[in-house]
Amino acid sequence: MAGPPRPARPVPPAGAARAPSGTPGDGPRTYAPDHPGKVRSMSSRSTQILEAAARVIARRGVRGLRVEELAAEAGVSTALIYYHFKDRTGVLRQTLEFINDRAERYTTDRDPDDPPLTPREELEETLLLELQDTVEVRENSSAWGELRASAVFDEVLREDLARATLVWVQEVAALLGQVQPMVPASALAGAAERLTALLEGLSMRWLSGGIKIGHARELMRGAIDAELSGLGQG
Amino acid sequence: MAGPPRPARPVPPAGAARAPSGTPGDGPRTYAPDHPGKVRSMSSRSTQILEAAARVIARRGVRGLRVEELAAEAGVSTALIYYHFKDRTGVLRQTLEFINDRAERYTTDRDPDDPPLTPREELEETLLLELQDTVEVRENSSAWGELRASAVFDEVLREDLARATLVWVQEVAALLGQVQPMVPASALAGAAERLTALLEGLSMRWLSGGIKIGHARELMRGAIDAELSGLGQG
Repeated sequence: MAGPPRPARPVPPAGAARAPSGTPGDGPRTYAPDHPGKVRSMSSRSTQILEAAARVIARRGVRGLRVEELAAEAGVSTALIYYHFKDRTGVLRQTLEFINDRAERYTTDRDPDDPPLTPREELEETLLLELQDTVEVRENSSAWGELRASAVFDEVLREDLARATLVWVQEVAALLGQVQPMVPASALAGAAERLTALLEGLSMRWLSGGIKIGHARELMRGAIDAELSGLGQG
Repeated sequence: MAGPPRPARPVPPAGAARAPSGTPGDGPRTYAPDHPGKVRSMSSRSTQILEAAARVIARRGVRGLRVEELAAEAGVSTALIYYHFKDRTGVLRQTLEFINDRAERYTTDRDPDDPPLTPREELEETLLLELQDTVEVRENSSAWGELRASAVFDEVLREDLARATLVWVQEVAALLGQVQPMVPASALAGAAERLTALLEGLSMRWLSGGIKIGHARELMRGAIDAELSGLGQG
C-alpha cells in the first residue's frame, strides 16, 4: 500500500550536514572502506539509515525495530542514529515519510518516451503499481501495513499516518475527478477513501499469503470499475 | 473486522473435558475461590483462556502474547494453557477461531421479535455490525487485524486465516446473491472479496485513529451501493 504522494522532504539543516567526523554519531562504519575518500552528505547517511529501517520493519515489524539492530543493519553507530533522528520515534516518523516518497516514485515514474496516459489509465496505474510483486513494493507495503497496525496500539504515529493517508486520498480523488469531471468533490473523496482503504486491505491479504498478486490486481480493477460506474450514476 | 462466520468449533475430546483436578495444567487459580465448589468444564476454562488471549492480542499484539502473561491475564497456570492448547501456536489458532465465532454471533444475532430483514438489509447489517464502537467489536477487530498483520511475518497462521477469510467471503457472496439472484457466482465472489477486504482496511483506519466510526460506516454503505450497482449492470 504505502502510498500517498507527498511534498518533498524538507532538506536537513546545512550545519548538521557538515558535521565533522568525530562528532557524536560518526560511527566507525560511516565512512565505508569501499568508498575511500568519499565523504557522504548527512542526507545520504540518513537515507541509508531509513532504507535499513524500512527493511527491518518489513522483515520483523515495528515492534522488532530496536535502535541497536537498526544500527547493525544500516552499518552505522547507534549514536549516529540518535544524532540524526533524536530517538526511535524520530526514526519511525521519518521512515513513514521515506516509504511514502518511495511509493510516490514507483507509482508515478513514467518513461518520458511512452505515450501520455489517459486519465483513466493514470488512475489505474497509480493504484495498481502498489500491487506489484517486486522486492521494493513488497517491502514498502509490508512496512506501511506494519506502521498502520502499530498505530492501533501506539498513538505516536497516528497523526503522521492520518496526514499521509489524507494526501494519498486527495491524490486519488483528483485522478477520479479527471475521469469524471462533473462529480462533486465529496463523492470523489468518498470513492478515493474506499479505493485506498481497499488497496490496504488487499495488500494485507496478499502479503499474508491469502491471495495471489494477480488476483489482488483483478479485484482492484473491479473496484475501480464499480466506483466509476457509481460516480457516473450519481 | 473479525469475521467470517464459521461452523461451530469441534467439541473437545470428552476425556480431556473431564480431566480431574491435579492433572498437569490444573493450576492454583483454576478453581477460583469466589466460585466455591464450582467445577468448571474444560470448555469453560478454555473459553476463559481464549477470552484472555483475545484481550492480550487486542491490547499488545500477537507478538506481545507470551504464555506467562496470558496465564496471568486468564488467572490460570501456564501448565493449564499447555495442557489445553499444546503450545503458543495452538493458542493463536484457537484464538483466531474464537474471535470468528464471536463475530458470527454479533453480526447475526437478531431479536426474534424484530420483523425479518430484507436480503439487502441483511447484507448491510452483516457488514456494518463489524463497524461498531463497542468494547467487544473493537477488541475483536484489533485482534483480527493483528493476526492478519502477524501472518505477513509468520507463516504459521496463514492457512487458518485463508480458510477463515474464504468462509467469510462465501457468506457475504451468498447474501449478495440473495439481493441480485441473476448474477454469476464468480461476480458475486469478487464483490464479496472486495467488500470484506475493504472492511478490513476501514477497520484498520478506524482502529488506528484515522477515521471516525460513523464515517467508516458511511464509506462501507457507499461501497455496498457501488458493488450492487456494478453487479446490476453486469
